[in-house]
Amino acid sequence: MVLEKFTVELGARSYDILIGPGLLGEAGRRLREAECRGKIMLVSNEKVYNLYGEMAAAAIASAGYKMTTALIPDGEEYKTLATAEALYNKAFDSGLDRGSAIVSLGGGITGDLAGFVAATYMRGIAFVQLPTTLLAQVDSSVGGKVGVNHPAGKNIIGAFHQPRLVLADTATLGTLEAAEIRAGLAEVIKYGVIWDGEFLAWLEEHLDLLLRLDPAAVGKAIGISCRIKSAVVAEDEREQGIRAILNFGHTVGHAVEALTGYRVYRHGEAVAIGMAAEARLAVKTGRLDPARSRRLETMLGRAGLPVAIPPGLSPQDLLASMLKDKKTMGGELTLILPNELGRVEIVRNLAPERVLAIIAELW
Amino acid sequence: MVLEKFTVELGARSYDILIGPGLLGEAGRRLREAECRGKIMLVSNEKVYNLYGEMAAAAIASAGYKMTTALIPDGEEYKTLATAEALYNKAFDSGLDRGSAIVSLGGGITGDLAGFVAATYMRGIAFVQLPTTLLAQVDSSVGGKVGVNHPAGKNIIGAFHQPRLVLADTATLGTLEAAEIRAGLAEVIKYGVIWDGEFLAWLEEHLDLLLRLDPAAVGKAIGISCRIKSAVVAEDEREQGIRAILNFGHTVGHAVEALTGYRVYRHGEAVAIGMAAEARLAVKTGRLDPARSRRLETMLGRAGLPVAIPPGLSPQDLLASMLKDKKTMGGELTLILPNELGRVEIVRNLAPERVLAIIAELW
Repeated sequence: MVLEKFTVELGARSYDILIGPGLLGEAGRRLREAECRGKIMLVSNEKVYNLYGEMAAAAIASAGYKMTTALIPDGEEYKTLATAEALYNKAFDSGLDRGSAIVSLGGGITGDLAGFVAATYMRGIAFVQLPTTLLAQVDSSVGGKVGVNHPAGKNIIGAFHQPRLVLADTATLGTLEAAEIRAGLAEVIKYGVIWDGEFLAWLEEHLDLLLRLDPAAVGKAIGISCRIKSAVVAEDEREQGIRAILNFGHTVGHAVEALTGYRVYRHGEAVAIGMAAEARLAVKTGRLDPARSRRLETMLGRAGLPVAIPPGLSPQDLLASMLKDKKTMGGELTLILPNELGRVEIVRNLAPERVLAIIAELW
Repeated sequence: MVLEKFTVELGARSYDILIGPGLLGEAGRRLREAECRGKIMLVSNEKVYNLYGEMAAAAIASAGYKMTTALIPDGEEYKTLATAEALYNKAFDSGLDRGSAIVSLGGGITGDLAGFVAATYMRGIAFVQLPTTLLAQVDSSVGGKVGVNHPAGKNIIGAFHQPRLVLADTATLGTLEAAEIRAGLAEVIKYGVIWDGEFLAWLEEHLDLLLRLDPAAVGKAIGISCRIKSAVVAEDEREQGIRAILNFGHTVGHAVEALTGYRVYRHGEAVAIGMAAEARLAVKTGRLDPARSRRLETMLGRAGLPVAIPPGLSPQDLLASMLKDKKTMGGELTLILPNELGRVEIVRNLAPERVLAIIAELW
């Protein structure tokens, strides 16, 4: 059932996002509507494939597609050029050509990796996202960022490659661990903070329903999140300007993830810590009313998300890691700081020493 | 000295091509004009660097850029993901960020590889081409095709990533082997066949001057070649349609290269064989007057280029290899066949058996 359907407006690269329970069963028909014509390579991992692979494969096959399946190992540590190379081999051996499509079934790791292969196989073939986690449905499947990790950092190797179609089957969220739902909600809350105070208030009010996966509430939260992300991406596809606001919580969040070896926190959990820290940076630089910062922290806490920077990290290490962020240019930090819950500012003129002095007070 | 300067019109991705002797010495100033602002990573190979590296590096440094140099091994067999990975490491260790640029100094292999790294490092950074071979100056440096090889074929992994600037210093051609000049002329002749009968006639008349590297003649030949390629690319950046005509001679040419392990022929030599074969396919399918086909073969022969398919290859193997071409979709061959010297047609409806019967007569 389609709860939400809308188009990401990117000229010749525009595409539809469909959200609702049971959409995996319509995958074949929807691929036809999106004008995918050639062979399909379905990329997934074993865990997701065991749950939803047969349903998706049957739906795709029923629309008359020739299909091959490639399973990749699960985990951020396999989101590498080596795994991409295995997918190039599989694609070539299966006869994928420029008219073929790669379909990702899974979370953000699968989507980023499959999307990178789609972006670079024969200089780019069609790509379809079937996201099965809340995080992927509200964030990574929309906007065309694809990539693999490099020993030096996450997504250092990547491209912009817009999908041809995104089908977010909300029924797949039922098999997620509760911690995964909470981590996804961190990004949902982020959209409220950067763009829409009313949505944030609605989220506060419906947080318990969302944590219980109430279908209508979840459908609405995903729909509004995707619309906000799409609006930002449509305005600035390649992150030359406003798209940077999507990184609220991510400058500190990425640093926390990196310094804890990507093993301690889920991405959404690190983003929650980052949002709390960056909101406090906004308070301490005179941008945000402290009551607003506390309101955000309370909400993150109610969602079961962490907000404290782990005490084992040093401010110096945190700052050094923040300076390695992909958004850093010419040694200048880019921070996304809220002026209000619902509006943020891109801040580039804070000297690293100033940031260090402030973040040292966050422990 | 700038002999030719023009803009490849691709909207926000438009860029200038400058052609003339001594342009390497102006590289720094020209990078500034092209609005490159951050760090520079100069990519070259040892042979080219020994000839022109210091001149280019001094010119870039004199414009105030921070610069690092990465030398890659020479040869098609090193145009791989593994070499790309070494360049990602070097880029990261040297502090390249999203505002940095990668500058390629060398031939097509260096440009393809450095361009692929620029296309995928931090989801794409600025890229500048300083082509030092005739082939790179008239073909590979223009149009944004970048990529690396895969065991299954050349450029199977790649992207479209337009350069920010192309500086073709024609003085660098003086150190090329004569065979390299001849191989480059194959692509120059190709532009005449696909687009401009008058240019082809001019080439016929000035072939001896070109082989002797007469500066004015060479400048003109490179300029017109780049203008033709640019016009085609501006109309069809991502090869959805007309751009395929640039592949005249390449369907058979690539197959000949692949079947001889890329060791027997230079790319331009294989393209010459391919053009002769495809012109004869045009004759045998009633498209081209046989006198025209003979005129083209005579010209290729005068340029010192091979035109005969190597007798050791079998027609079956040649066809099988042609069917693996990246242009093949749904098992259907794409052939670029001339109707006239100066005009070609994209032909997709020739059954492989028909093609086999015709190519079997070419030996």
